[in-house]
Amino acid sequence: MGVRDLVEGKALEAREGARALLKASTSKKNRALLRMAEALLDSAERLMKENGRDVSAAREKGLSGALIDRLTLTEKRINEMAAGMREVAALPDPVGEITRIWQRPNGMSVGRMRVPIGVIGIIYESRPNVTADATSLCLKAGNAVLLRGGSEAINSNKAIVGILREVASSEGIHEGAVTFIDTPEREAVMEMLKLEGIVDLIIPRGGEGLIRTVTENSRIPVLKHYKGVCHVFVDRDANLVMAEEICFNAKVQRPGTCNAMETMLVDKAVAEEYLPAVLKRLHEAGVKIKGCERTRQIYPEAEEVKEADYDNEYLDLVLNVRVVRDMDEAMEHIARHGSAHTDTIVTDNYHKAMRFLREVDSSAVMVNASTRLNDGGQFGLGAEIGISTDKIHARGPMGLEELTCTKFIVLGSGQLRG
Amino acid sequence: MGVRDLVEGKALEAREGARALLKASTSKKNRALLRMAEALLDSAERLMKENGRDVSAAREKGLSGALIDRLTLTEKRINEMAAGMREVAALPDPVGEITRIWQRPNGMSVGRMRVPIGVIGIIYESRPNVTADATSLCLKAGNAVLLRGGSEAINSNKAIVGILREVASSEGIHEGAVTFIDTPEREAVMEMLKLEGIVDLIIPRGGEGLIRTVTENSRIPVLKHYKGVCHVFVDRDANLVMAEEICFNAKVQRPGTCNAMETMLVDKAVAEEYLPAVLKRLHEAGVKIKGCERTRQIYPEAEEVKEADYDNEYLDLVLNVRVVRDMDEAMEHIARHGSAHTDTIVTDNYHKAMRFLREVDSSAVMVNASTRLNDGGQFGLGAEIGISTDKIHARGPMGLEELTCTKFIVLGSGQLRG
Repeated sequence: MGVRDLVEGKALEAREGARALLKASTSKKNRALLRMAEALLDSAERLMKENGRDVSAAREKGLSGALIDRLTLTEKRINEMAAGMREVAALPDPVGEITRIWQRPNGMSVGRMRVPIGVIGIIYESRPNVTADATSLCLKAGNAVLLRGGSEAINSNKAIVGILREVASSEGIHEGAVTFIDTPEREAVMEMLKLEGIVDLIIPRGGEGLIRTVTENSRIPVLKHYKGVCHVFVDRDANLVMAEEICFNAKVQRPGTCNAMETMLVDKAVAEEYLPAVLKRLHEAGVKIKGCERTRQIYPEAEEVKEADYDNEYLDLVLNVRVVRDMDEAMEHIARHGSAHTDTIVTDNYHKAMRFLREVDSSAVMVNASTRLNDGGQFGLGAEIGISTDKIHARGPMGLEELTCTKFIVLGSGQLRG
Repeated sequence: MGVRDLVEGKALEAREGARALLKASTSKKNRALLRMAEALLDSAERLMKENGRDVSAAREKGLSGALIDRLTLTEKRINEMAAGMREVAALPDPVGEITRIWQRPNGMSVGRMRVPIGVIGIIYESRPNVTADATSLCLKAGNAVLLRGGSEAINSNKAIVGILREVASSEGIHEGAVTFIDTPEREAVMEMLKLEGIVDLIIPRGGEGLIRTVTENSRIPVLKHYKGVCHVFVDRDANLVMAEEICFNAKVQRPGTCNAMETMLVDKAVAEEYLPAVLKRLHEAGVKIKGCERTRQIYPEAEEVKEADYDNEYLDLVLNVRVVRDMDEAMEHIARHGSAHTDTIVTDNYHKAMRFLREVDSSAVMVNASTRLNDGGQFGLGAEIGISTDKIHARGPMGLEELTCTKFIVLGSGQLRG
């Protein structure tokens, strides 16, 4: 069987799974998720053995240490996968919720009901834990998942999927609800992206290269997360003590994440007062400072920042610092260089806070809070499948609700069109 | 200048327009819409003259009468365009609405705020009124519109856009908010579809061919309306008088629309009682009946329906009739042959109504109401830009809300990530 037929066959199986899931009750889905968590824990040894085959192969191929780390399943990671599935089981079911209902002059009620999207294709790289995490979120929201993991994790993924499907089937959930494209052929991704009408949504999870390839080749809608070039703007009316804490937290607390600050913008009116202490503290925490001309007048130890640096997602202890004329220049900078991910203003001025909230066009816009807080858990959404930097369907952290859509329902009593 | 550069230049202008619109107040947008309506009426003569050039060219080229009808601007149509703009001005502004806000344990408030999508590309065919209709909806929702009309309407569209831009500019709205790709080159559409990162959403409006080309070639998210293969299922527990009225209305009231019924499914338990009268009445109204075997036993005048007929959007006085075993078989039929547009059950049985609402996966699912009621106006959404049969972002009639997305806002007081 060619790759094309194999992929289409799997997708059609997922489609059947999705149709069957339309009838699954919340308690049935929850019971399956809890039993899946249990089954993963019970099979930890076997999973680690299968994973060991992938890890050895990766070592033989000389793949990087970072990749091998992401690939490796430890007992701790298996526990986390199971805990994640239980957490999702405990979240409220979005499916069937009527988000609004209203009455029309002719007496019919019109409402919106949350419904599953259908078949969600997940394209990911080496982390086998994505297999369980994505399955639990998709399943809870009533969607079938069509998984395509990295070829280097194929044995691990096959083992995980085997366990999940076995539970699904014994709990009366169509096995197609958890479908895995079990070929290492790279072509499989391209074939998957052509299946519009069978697959309803693609979520790529991985590096910029993967995401770009998927976006450029997909005929199916894609929800994606490009990069996080996040800003904190310290306004002239900021509480400078608060500003320092927020900037320090946003840069240093976990610099490798997409919601860490990459550029600090400082109002010229407070630059001289604010910068020396905060830059010294950041420097002492190991942060390399790249500054604009004015920054370097105030803090000569800074390197020179180049225009292109402002577009960089460092994911590291490096920070661009720019002194700006006012909030308008800061917002222009964010519009030009930002990635519409997370941007914060620190200010005590009500009017500027309101304007910043309204005019900055990012997935999360904050007043007086660290960019690091843009996260499904921190926002109270429960588990998330990623942070969307798209502008269609969902922006920001994507939880269960974002894995649904709404349809219209009409409760009539014989209404006709006049 | 090549087509590519021309299209990209226009798109960048629209992007600037979109940025400027983030600051436009509701009253500014409304004033502009009202003045645009006025300006269209004031220029009716000039518009009809420019339109006359397009109509003559179309006649010379021997284009079809139906196309020439869609292309032609009459005084009535210009009045309707203006009325549409006024209607949109009167609708509530979705932008800036905080749809929900909640507090987190650390004291910060997290909310969702409705925001414009950005630049919306509209690709349409010969109707010049789409130029004004799409502009008013996009503008009111804070989006810049990048218009690409059919080459046969180019003079009409240029004239309309010229008027709209002149008003925009005099009302302090960036002209880029209304941008028109003024080349007849067909290549322009393909170039437009590559501009991800500049254009945020594409809405094609036209026939299946146009929509398919756009979907297959776009790197930008597309919201679209494929066909409407709509069903009415007459359950064994239906009020048969109501069923007859609903089916007659759904088929005959305006058969050329996407929400007209194409297939009537009838529970076998009531087929013999129900079918003769309704089919006679439909026949007398000029409807050609194509029936399954059982239907033709009951009503021998029916033609034989073929399996492929069930996938047809007739847009005409033709109806498929199929007798089914029960509601499950009806729902299977809808899942296999439907286009996820509009489907109705007629029943007095509460449990079947609830199951049908939940399990049928269409943009509008109705109980005891005519499919013809699936419409933005009938649902109370105001004007609509189309009916989406997609499952991402929006399903069903798309009004102003569907031309926005939500971003997260955080109102903090110094919160950090621990």
